[in-house]
Amino acid sequence: MLRQCLQTFLRLASTRASQAPVNKTHKFYVKLIGGGTVLYQFSLFGLGGSRTYDMDSADSWMAKPITDLEYLKENSQDMKCRVEALIMRIQAEFCHALEKEEQQEGGKKFIVDKWDREQGGGGITCVLQDGTVFEKAGVNVSVVSGFLPPSAMQQMRARGKKLEGDKVKFFAAGVSSVIHPKNPHIPTVHFNYRYFEVESENGEKQWWFGGGTDLTPNFLEEEDVVLFHKALKKACDRHDKQLYPKYKKWCDDYFHVKHRGERRGVGGIFFDDVDEPSADKCFDFVTSCAESVIPSYLPIVQKHKKDTYSYKEREWQLLRRGRYVEFNLIYDRGTKFGLYTPGARFESILMSLPLNARWEYMHKPAPGSREAKLVEVLKNPKDWI
Amino acid sequence: MLRQCLQTFLRLASTRASQAPVNKTHKFYVKLIGGGTVLYQFSLFGLGGSRTYDMDSADSWMAKPITDLEYLKENSQDMKCRVEALIMRIQAEFCHALEKEEQQEGGKKFIVDKWDREQGGGGITCVLQDGTVFEKAGVNVSVVSGFLPPSAMQQMRARGKKLEGDKVKFFAAGVSSVIHPKNPHIPTVHFNYRYFEVESENGEKQWWFGGGTDLTPNFLEEEDVVLFHKALKKACDRHDKQLYPKYKKWCDDYFHVKHRGERRGVGGIFFDDVDEPSADKCFDFVTSCAESVIPSYLPIVQKHKKDTYSYKEREWQLLRRGRYVEFNLIYDRGTKFGLYTPGARFESILMSLPLNARWEYMHKPAPGSREAKLVEVLKNPKDWI
Repeated sequence: MLRQCLQTFLRLASTRASQAPVNKTHKFYVKLIGGGTVLYQFSLFGLGGSRTYDMDSADSWMAKPITDLEYLKENSQDMKCRVEALIMRIQAEFCHALEKEEQQEGGKKFIVDKWDREQGGGGITCVLQDGTVFEKAGVNVSVVSGFLPPSAMQQMRARGKKLEGDKVKFFAAGVSSVIHPKNPHIPTVHFNYRYFEVESENGEKQWWFGGGTDLTPNFLEEEDVVLFHKALKKACDRHDKQLYPKYKKWCDDYFHVKHRGERRGVGGIFFDDVDEPSADKCFDFVTSCAESVIPSYLPIVQKHKKDTYSYKEREWQLLRRGRYVEFNLIYDRGTKFGLYTPGARFESILMSLPLNARWEYMHKPAPGSREAKLVEVLKNPKDWI
Repeated sequence: MLRQCLQTFLRLASTRASQAPVNKTHKFYVKLIGGGTVLYQFSLFGLGGSRTYDMDSADSWMAKPITDLEYLKENSQDMKCRVEALIMRIQAEFCHALEKEEQQEGGKKFIVDKWDREQGGGGITCVLQDGTVFEKAGVNVSVVSGFLPPSAMQQMRARGKKLEGDKVKFFAAGVSSVIHPKNPHIPTVHFNYRYFEVESENGEKQWWFGGGTDLTPNFLEEEDVVLFHKALKKACDRHDKQLYPKYKKWCDDYFHVKHRGERRGVGGIFFDDVDEPSADKCFDFVTSCAESVIPSYLPIVQKHKKDTYSYKEREWQLLRRGRYVEFNLIYDRGTKFGLYTPGARFESILMSLPLNARWEYMHKPAPGSREAKLVEVLKNPKDWI
């Protein structure tokens, strides 16, 4: 136990995670040489934490949860409640971490929009727009339920789910985020972790987890990409050494801008329909992945946020953002599923789009340029570790 | 006959059509009071012109046609050849007309890309990018043939086409264009006119025409919208008074950004599967529509190209361009069909995207503002004539 604590501490210390306000019982104060007091958190209860760990962080959440906090606490054995508390904590930690970077440069704060869904449930959308460090940062939580629309049932059946009858109840809760920084030398990051339950008319239930984190740089900084992938691998390896290679490949396959024969970025991990070996273990795995977002990304933000850049570099960034839009609007399953779902809150779904994007006809980077090197790796994904 | 000529002349004179280089035998020089010499063209042979009218304009085309010119001339009774000559002429006239506006402001010329399609046919893509008047102007011709991919067959069957067997031959030829001007007070225009032939394994043939022209302003200038719709109505009315109302409604229904409950713009005309009363009459109708692009749009460009505009107006234009991207990438049948077709030239398909676009979270125009007035009419399309 002590060894595990120490390892966790060293991992976090080496990646300089954020100063997220968390419950006192889970804080560690660390005096870094040459640095200020940095506050790190980790679970005292091993992988995934105690059953109430996420709920105990409620004071720091961006808003009141969708479900009443008392109800969440009273039903802390129910996976739906556990997931809601987890995603509320992840949202808060990530927003606070980003806000800290932004505030250091005299920038902006997140605006917080809490919204209800007419057909059941709602969400909390946090957006920081046109900041100093972040051009557009969105971190969204949603907890929705009701009956599956026909298009969603069709999509799920195609993926092998057994759904009986026309009236299939569903519950979906997830946290998703896309961060588009201003500086072209800081990559865009995206993550999404979600839990699904469906119940057919005959009472048969199914549940599964899905998610992933992936990085989209404008220029290839191998060191950054390796750091990013290492953090994700560490999160996966703690559960099963076979997960990272499998989900890394899935990520490369999924984020494919087919008409261009390019990947959206340099990958990460991606998975869906995860329901083994048990709900508890799946929850722990997803918790690890979600907790690895800050240590995989924040060090890259800190490293590059004061980099200088040229007009040409900014233009290239805008062109890459255009490709990002292409993937999200043409291929992304989440976006399509969202926009075609009646009563969907399109502003939260489209928050993933950059503030600015550009399309030039037949743009081709000069051979041998840094731009060309990036495109090369997007066309031929490689192993980073 | 004389009356018809005179009417045509008056129509063109009143809308100040472009000075497109056309065959001498079809030119009319007109001295306008207070203006220079303006050159107008119309057919001396009534609606749709003679069987060789389009081909006789070959000297002015932007490039050599996809099919050998001699073959086109020798087969001038074949609808495939007639359509190819028509779209080559329409492309050239429109490019020359836009280039004239651009050159008057010391701007750029179109670049001309001729491309081949591995599976059969090819196209000519003309693009003027980052000009003085036009931020991105694309005018594309394509003439392609081969076997329909399964996805296209599925789409066509869903639309009621009888396609027997797995190997269905197709021929498709069309001209399409999207013009994004720099000045926010000039609307974006889009048009597309196309001809399709399919032949099932059992030898059964079907053909049809499709197309439309529609306008997307950033600010509502009723006078401009009325001028635009009047030109389209005139083109339709010459064939059948019922066409304009029918195709105007179809346009409003088609260019629907469903998740926002907004139309893309202020409409125009849109039609598909047109195969009555005869191939000749359909061709004549499509010719009229395609010829109405210049008189419906150029006067608006000329009127506004020197308008001053504020930073805020430019920003609003960029936001509207974001909506344009949303429609094209999420809903547009042509874009989807194109991008999912193996061997498609995606650069020509995506030429419709603006040079720059912007997305702000929860952007809402101030009540009563000019921006709000536009959105109001996009939410509730109205009759303009």
